[in-house]
Amino acid sequence: MKKSIVIFGSTGNLTYKKLLPAIDNLIRQKRLKKDDRVYLLARHDISLKQYIEDAKKQVKEMLDWTVLEEVLEFVYFHLNQIEDYQKLNHRLKDSGYTDNVFYLALPPKLFPEVAKGISASGLVTKGDASKRIVFEKPFGENLESARTINRELWRYFDESQIYRIDHYLGKEMIQNILVVRFANRIFGQTWNHNTIRNIVIIAKETEGVMSRGNYYDKIGALKDMLQSHLLQMAALIGMTRPKTFQSEDIKDAKVKVLNDLKLDSSSVVFGQYNGYLDENKIADDSQTETFIFAKAHFMNDKWRGTPIYFITGKKLDEKRSEIIINFKDDTNLNQIFSNAKPNNTKLVFKVAPEDGVKFQLNVKQPGLSDEIISGHLDYCHTCNWVGNTTEAYEKLLFDVLNNNKTLFTRWDEIEVMWEIISEIQHMNIPLHVYDDFDHLKEIILTEKGVDIDAL
Amino acid sequence: MKKSIVIFGSTGNLTYKKLLPAIDNLIRQKRLKKDDRVYLLARHDISLKQYIEDAKKQVKEMLDWTVLEEVLEFVYFHLNQIEDYQKLNHRLKDSGYTDNVFYLALPPKLFPEVAKGISASGLVTKGDASKRIVFEKPFGENLESARTINRELWRYFDESQIYRIDHYLGKEMIQNILVVRFANRIFGQTWNHNTIRNIVIIAKETEGVMSRGNYYDKIGALKDMLQSHLLQMAALIGMTRPKTFQSEDIKDAKVKVLNDLKLDSSSVVFGQYNGYLDENKIADDSQTETFIFAKAHFMNDKWRGTPIYFITGKKLDEKRSEIIINFKDDTNLNQIFSNAKPNNTKLVFKVAPEDGVKFQLNVKQPGLSDEIISGHLDYCHTCNWVGNTTEAYEKLLFDVLNNNKTLFTRWDEIEVMWEIISEIQHMNIPLHVYDDFDHLKEIILTEKGVDIDAL
Repeated sequence: MKKSIVIFGSTGNLTYKKLLPAIDNLIRQKRLKKDDRVYLLARHDISLKQYIEDAKKQVKEMLDWTVLEEVLEFVYFHLNQIEDYQKLNHRLKDSGYTDNVFYLALPPKLFPEVAKGISASGLVTKGDASKRIVFEKPFGENLESARTINRELWRYFDESQIYRIDHYLGKEMIQNILVVRFANRIFGQTWNHNTIRNIVIIAKETEGVMSRGNYYDKIGALKDMLQSHLLQMAALIGMTRPKTFQSEDIKDAKVKVLNDLKLDSSSVVFGQYNGYLDENKIADDSQTETFIFAKAHFMNDKWRGTPIYFITGKKLDEKRSEIIINFKDDTNLNQIFSNAKPNNTKLVFKVAPEDGVKFQLNVKQPGLSDEIISGHLDYCHTCNWVGNTTEAYEKLLFDVLNNNKTLFTRWDEIEVMWEIISEIQHMNIPLHVYDDFDHLKEIILTEKGVDIDAL
Repeated sequence: MKKSIVIFGSTGNLTYKKLLPAIDNLIRQKRLKKDDRVYLLARHDISLKQYIEDAKKQVKEMLDWTVLEEVLEFVYFHLNQIEDYQKLNHRLKDSGYTDNVFYLALPPKLFPEVAKGISASGLVTKGDASKRIVFEKPFGENLESARTINRELWRYFDESQIYRIDHYLGKEMIQNILVVRFANRIFGQTWNHNTIRNIVIIAKETEGVMSRGNYYDKIGALKDMLQSHLLQMAALIGMTRPKTFQSEDIKDAKVKVLNDLKLDSSSVVFGQYNGYLDENKIADDSQTETFIFAKAHFMNDKWRGTPIYFITGKKLDEKRSEIIINFKDDTNLNQIFSNAKPNNTKLVFKVAPEDGVKFQLNVKQPGLSDEIISGHLDYCHTCNWVGNTTEAYEKLLFDVLNNNKTLFTRWDEIEVMWEIISEIQHMNIPLHVYDDFDHLKEIILTEKGVDIDAL
């Protein structure tokens, strides 16, 4: 069957930076065919040729524009004019495109209006599985606004038609977490508080807000990173074995463990990098946090006493996103090995910039000594892979086209993730202006008394 | 204190190939000092200069002969003349060498006579910890002869003075087994029949008997490899946590688990490589096995249902010595991952020619597919090590000099290892003449019904 992707907001950053390259890749891999269509909607009265000329200036990758041109169609469109929705509806039907993905690459405040237009025009009938709507985060700004937005969406669409993007879930190593956990008995049996000392979820960036000041200043690290990406990672690490690997069962398991997750509000550190206020489109007196540290616990038997540490921020010492599973020392290690210093043993899911798995074990120091040192076992996920590796958006688009919801967030996930940070959102947390990560580290270690090697 | 090493059999292969290079290394590392002495005993009326000239032709490594010459002394010696022992005793005492290692680089049949000479001449007093005697394997030819030899030795020496060499125990990764097992909680908790499907202990060689025909034809693979090296490896893998990492506690734990080890005599495959009978110094009608396969079990609760497979032989497809821990599939793997082929997950101790640890896990195939593939996490033990790495004999000599018995075999270990193979020694096992490993593999897989990927 011929498929179409309809992109609302086709002259935005997301379309240029992520969606067009993903579509190009899907065509190369023959996952999108030449008679499939991508409709680019925008309030610009321009031709497709002109759109492509503009896009070429924005897209960094080398795309095959000749092939793309055969698949792309440009549509002059006003989000607030119902006639435009109706015209689009006729156009799709007349061309035989009945299997449609509507991708809202738009600010969340526009979601209700566009959803209404899509529904009222008959573009989407509630419950029709051949019509899917894709939303980008942030999905609301807090628990209440998220609920309001969602109530609107549910008026027009069935939950099964709604695809909420968290692009972290499309990353290779995030997809890999459940495989490593549940397809390897040695981890299946030891994945609990008895073996694991703590879990550290890190997403550090070296860059500042760049051109995203207008957006970022309203959001901050708590909502931009922790409420979404980091909590999703925590869910994948903390969840119990799902009934099956099917989408709904995985979501059930994630929601269950997220319901157990409690942030320790007294542990939270907010930071704002020195110079943030001078960035473009940032309020002069902005109190927006560009760094957050938080400690949390899953309040259940499986994880009793094993803390989770979240660390994320901008303008830090390195670009690194990873999940560190720090194991407990072995029982009576010192009693057994007279020279044993208790090295940290850990399993690391490397998410970005490299992807892979690192396993750090205690081994004997080579040579005549009996000292124990750390040995590193490394697996690079994509290094030696000769097939195609994918960017997150390519995988996510592919899955929407194939009605696979595994990597998208269900409403109850969104809801519990807002609940988790709700208390912090209502608190007046002091903001530390920082020059570098060492400054923040000092605060976490001394003021908060947190003892993690991984920092 | 000045130390001396007295080598009986200093014109033999072992001295040239192993002991002299080890001594050279110990000097380089300043573990042997210039006023320490190495006495080279042999029934040749030659000078040290002449000895060194002869040795240079035999030793493959580049040794620092100038420095070695300061430490070496050559002694014209007859093993059957008590006066020679007495003269040696005076020489040691007169030069102030009272801390002595007597290294019998000799065939086992000479052990009792030399032990008697050493004792009768007063070179060693029973129980004097400053005098140690080192014996090379094979320690006997069966349970009875081993007991007879040992009874003799115990007449003259205390068990604490006796160092029985199994050079495999000096290899880096063999030393590493206990560290990896007991200093990493994740393995400590899963090291049993519940997680481990089977254990495969492999020592394959590509070479034939070479110049060792005379020795090898009397011994064969069962005694040369399985009774000693392979059973020792099995003990290190199968033993429970020792009380401490001290020598005697480790030996207690090894003996305990070796007592539980039962070879399945009906599983045993003997092979002799095609061409063996044409080798130098091999009996025309020799029935000596150059290959052995055997299945065994530890008859205890920890290992109930987890078989151990032993594979060793000459003229095989590769030179490889390693221990493979094959894990069980995770529970309900197929139920969870619809595309899951149950890949083997395993931990491999690579002993030779490379040393290191390999961990093979199930991971997601990169790209759009949900298939599961095997990911390899590799740790190379000595690759990136900037300090000195050691050959087995260097480590073992160093330990004898320092009264560290951990890597030497105690009498009750020797005894139980002979007991384990005793039944097979008395059986008439058919000998398969083989051209290559595939031939043997076929027999093991079909005739013996063994299902191991690792073959």
